Amino acid sequence: MRIFCLDLEGVLIPEIWIGLAERTGIDALRATTRDVPDYNALMRQRLGLLEDHRLGMRDVEAVVATMAPLPGAREFLRWLRGQGPVIILSDTYREFAGPLMAQLDLPTLLCHSLVVDEDGRISDYRLRHPDHKRASVEAFRTLNFHVTAVGDSYNDIAMLQAADAGILFRAPAAVREEYPEFAAVEDYDALRDLVRNCGET
Amino acid sequence: MRIFCLDLEGVLIPEIWIGLAERTGIDALRATTRDVPDYNALMRQRLGLLEDHRLGMRDVEAVVATMAPLPGAREFLRWLRGQGPVIILSDTYREFAGPLMAQLDLPTLLCHSLVVDEDGRISDYRLRHPDHKRASVEAFRTLNFHVTAVGDSYNDIAMLQAADAGILFRAPAAVREEYPEFAAVEDYDALRDLVRNCGET
Repeated sequence: MRIFCLDLEGVLIPEIWIGLAERTGIDALRATTRDVPDYNALMRQRLGLLEDHRLGMRDVEAVVATMAPLPGAREFLRWLRGQGPVIILSDTYREFAGPLMAQLDLPTLLCHSLVVDEDGRISDYRLRHPDHKRASVEAFRTLNFHVTAVGDSYNDIAMLQAADAGILFRAPAAVREEYPEFAAVEDYDALRDLVRNCGET
Repeated sequence: MRIFCLDLEGVLIPEIWIGLAERTGIDALRATTRDVPDYNALMRQRLGLLEDHRLGMRDVEAVVATMAPLPGAREFLRWLRGQGPVIILSDTYREFAGPLMAQLDLPTLLCHSLVVDEDGRISDYRLRHPDHKRASVEAFRTLNFHVTAVGDSYNDIAMLQAADAGILFRAPAAVREEYPEFAAVEDYDALRDLVRNCGET
């Protein structure tokens, strides 16, 4: 029996921090681990920027609500949910992704969470598990699932390697070249065909 | 971070085999493990009955499509999906439950599967994992989730025991008496209150 594990940002929705940067005009929110390699330092910087601009959880939610899934993502996901259980494995925060999850018809999302004070200030974040994408795929395999995993970047590679079938979706050329063992596709039609063809044998 | 693991039949939808018995008039489909303690013998009997009455997958699907979730289940589930990820853990078969899952807005269902021939005959069944409810809850705990599990009968007890919080929903009196350690509720309003109050401390 198959299960599908999908990355979220880049596969079904745009990058949330980029969307926040664009919509708030706070350009420094575009920083990624390429700019600040220490993830914890990066998150402190991001939460500090939100605080400096007096943006609380409600403001962030309102901004994310103006974002939309990638074109075709909703239809693809609806089709995939007819093929077997779908679990979205993401390093985003549950509170950030909420409005976009509603637009995707509430798929099951396993991710991290924010600490929000009573006055709506985002005071901290909690990483549920340091390597949860890989660990989740391994857990589903111990439950006797045939796991197909789909991701787009370096932080998905461990998940793809742990899966029975790993697929790169719109991955940068560097990732595709470094990991030629994974099939790579650029649109949902090709992803649909690949998912159909990489099932249990 | 919380995750919710729910049994399906008796918690969100009626018993499917009973529904099939009622709608097809095949009274012998009402048999449960109380009547035929060996589950494999019971399943052989059920599939034999379907074959004797020339009922294939399409017929069963059409019958199940006339069934509906328990009153209030859809609204409860929608609310719960706003509280955290929800995984339905059931010993039903994916192909049977399909039409009812659509009526519940496609929640994530982990269960077993049937072997359906090209001509639609249900020729066999595959139990994915002998004890998947308990094993799934344990897996989610290793992924650092706080697990709340909800079930209604003996085959849910191992799952409830493995969870951080276990709740009986409309369980028979014998089950409630034998397992007084689990909170027991009879309707979705009470279940909602209990779910709110048994979270992480």
